[in-house]
Amino acid sequence: MDAQNLDVGQEIEAPPHVTIKGILGLLMGSIDCNNDSKKVISLGIGDPTAHSCFYTTSAAQEAVVRSLRSAKFNGYAPTVGLPQTRRALAGYLSRDLPYELSLDDVYVTAGCTQAIEIALTILTRPGANILLPRPCFPIYGLCAAFRNLEIRHFDLLPEKGWEVDLNAVEDLADHNTVAMVIINPGNPCGNVYTYQQLKKIAEVAKRLGIAVIADEVYGHLAFGANPFVPMGVFGSIAPVLTLGSLSKRWLVPGWRLGWLVTNDPDGILKSPKFVERLKKYCDICGGPATFIQAAVPAIIEETQEFFFRKTINMLRLTSDICYNKINEIRCLSCPRKPEGSMAFMVKLNISVLKDIGDDLDFCFKLAKEESVIILPGLAVGLKNWLRITFAVEPSLLEEALERVNRFCERHSSQQNGY
Amino acid sequence: MDAQNLDVGQEIEAPPHVTIKGILGLLMGSIDCNNDSKKVISLGIGDPTAHSCFYTTSAAQEAVVRSLRSAKFNGYAPTVGLPQTRRALAGYLSRDLPYELSLDDVYVTAGCTQAIEIALTILTRPGANILLPRPCFPIYGLCAAFRNLEIRHFDLLPEKGWEVDLNAVEDLADHNTVAMVIINPGNPCGNVYTYQQLKKIAEVAKRLGIAVIADEVYGHLAFGANPFVPMGVFGSIAPVLTLGSLSKRWLVPGWRLGWLVTNDPDGILKSPKFVERLKKYCDICGGPATFIQAAVPAIIEETQEFFFRKTINMLRLTSDICYNKINEIRCLSCPRKPEGSMAFMVKLNISVLKDIGDDLDFCFKLAKEESVIILPGLAVGLKNWLRITFAVEPSLLEEALERVNRFCERHSSQQNGY
Repeated sequence: MDAQNLDVGQEIEAPPHVTIKGILGLLMGSIDCNNDSKKVISLGIGDPTAHSCFYTTSAAQEAVVRSLRSAKFNGYAPTVGLPQTRRALAGYLSRDLPYELSLDDVYVTAGCTQAIEIALTILTRPGANILLPRPCFPIYGLCAAFRNLEIRHFDLLPEKGWEVDLNAVEDLADHNTVAMVIINPGNPCGNVYTYQQLKKIAEVAKRLGIAVIADEVYGHLAFGANPFVPMGVFGSIAPVLTLGSLSKRWLVPGWRLGWLVTNDPDGILKSPKFVERLKKYCDICGGPATFIQAAVPAIIEETQEFFFRKTINMLRLTSDICYNKINEIRCLSCPRKPEGSMAFMVKLNISVLKDIGDDLDFCFKLAKEESVIILPGLAVGLKNWLRITFAVEPSLLEEALERVNRFCERHSSQQNGY
Repeated sequence: MDAQNLDVGQEIEAPPHVTIKGILGLLMGSIDCNNDSKKVISLGIGDPTAHSCFYTTSAAQEAVVRSLRSAKFNGYAPTVGLPQTRRALAGYLSRDLPYELSLDDVYVTAGCTQAIEIALTILTRPGANILLPRPCFPIYGLCAAFRNLEIRHFDLLPEKGWEVDLNAVEDLADHNTVAMVIINPGNPCGNVYTYQQLKKIAEVAKRLGIAVIADEVYGHLAFGANPFVPMGVFGSIAPVLTLGSLSKRWLVPGWRLGWLVTNDPDGILKSPKFVERLKKYCDICGGPATFIQAAVPAIIEETQEFFFRKTINMLRLTSDICYNKINEIRCLSCPRKPEGSMAFMVKLNISVLKDIGDDLDFCFKLAKEESVIILPGLAVGLKNWLRITFAVEPSLLEEALERVNRFCERHSSQQNGY
């Protein structure tokens, strides 16, 4: 037998975890191609760049062009990132902190995805476990599975605006727990935590002796009552690993420019062995392109406040459209108006539908009949919920939600009126 | 005690492996800053972009500018890569193969570094081992250590032009061996394997039931008697995972555009479970920037043959300078003239030096006294050898080797004549 040692397809299996892209791919595949009258509209993925109202600033684009054409940044960067990039990011993130980050706190990564991978890998050890929110961005579960890091879920409470169930956190943790993950502004929930809520989380982490992994990839994208507060503000209560990227605030997820930052003024994460392990791990990861890294100081310096405000205003508008339309749809309800990020969770009331089994069934039939793509809650760990992305051009969003409404009416068990 | 669960600095340690960048950093730190008369010259790292004679083609640069300014590629790419990029790479690599690759064979990665990481991770399983050449590019050892993949070394034989010791390979392998690594053109040896040598390697891999990981990051950079033959030519003898990137042939290592390719016409690596695992693993890796990926078809199509010829001619020139100069230096000898890649191995005859202990000592004293950086052989697994990079501007290369000569004379046990 050839290649008998490989045992491919026998021993080595992928983790069973679903991925957003996997499910969206299946949904796209189930669209009725003969349905010419209906353009496909996706409310499925947090990539706004398909819509011209979410186009990045030319300041950022031209900074990258200049960096590339300078011919100075075609070579390797240090695997932890260019010093000028680390320094610029340290300065940018320190604006919102009660202490100053140094460039040594910042590791430049290929998007927030790689920052997640590095954070989880670097914290793991045999027998370790990690506390993840439910619902959660699914890359965390997949990554933990690849690294043999045991996953324990605590609930986010929809009736309390997706607050963390801190009692559950304390019950789940043991001496093998290394960290808990907080995504703020929330993906998939669209909530924004208050200063007091974040402080309580840090205090629980301190009591448990664990780190907080603060996923702030949607940092600053808050448009409700609560301002965005970085978890790093509480870095002196518990050590915080902050993950972020240019992707969302600058509307360039494809540029793959992210960061992992030790927000840790007491230096728990700065022990020489931890830093050595982190640096060596960066040596085996392919980081972001050097010329994009080199453009970061100019991108931060030259982006006008007006650009950020425009994005925030657009997200407030589209989230309002979404919230109002959803509330008109009989089988759907929102526990909370979205206040941040680019997506939120909507509850599906299966009992008022006559021929829909669950959220998966809902999404597949919706794709087939209406050419609208919505992510089933199952993909983020909540059965019979939906995750809806509102970073979509307003007229398309309205059209998509009209179709969802018609779909729900058609499948309602109380057709033609209440 | 705070953060007691993290045990940072206690349980979790970095693998003991040295890295090229780690050693080069220490060498840079030992340079005498008061030595104003001597500009630092590095023959230490395979990054030619510091030298204007190794500048990329404007066709490649402007393809990336166009892609960026089109505003169509700021969003996410599929984690395995854009289809048009995979298709273009499949076509480019198929030119030299007796069969056609399809786009499904190609996974686009953040440089060859990420391709190495993915290949090793995806093949590992509990108890598995991998066969690495000695000397070897050290990222392989570090990556295997992070993934708990046992490393077994087979020798490359300097007296036979760095041929693989295939008897050793057969002795080392057992039922837990998953793959052997072949780097061709050779890093750090500067050799180029013949068609017959590669075929024999594939036949041994077939007998052992293992895959060949063919690192062809220096693919096509052959300027001696042996033409470059891709290992994929023998993909029907044993399954081959080919790793490569734009980095070296296009002189853009900082663009981080690499690939992992299944060269496997019999489909051993195309079992649904293996492909699923590979795809899911790509989901947790941050890949290369979408707009750089999108430029790849134009980069391949629009780069003139003249650009490639110019690089080859320059490398032939600088490797000749290097070889001839080295042979004039009493304590150094080359077993073989370099024929490919951008670096080669030089033997250090410690016995003719009066006050140099070993290769590390040689390199640190050389850095301090002459401001010349050379990588000690220890970093690639061969004590009392040196790895010298010749992708350097000719006048600087001559100056650096003059200094090495003076250094050797000064430390010779037979000063003032033979």
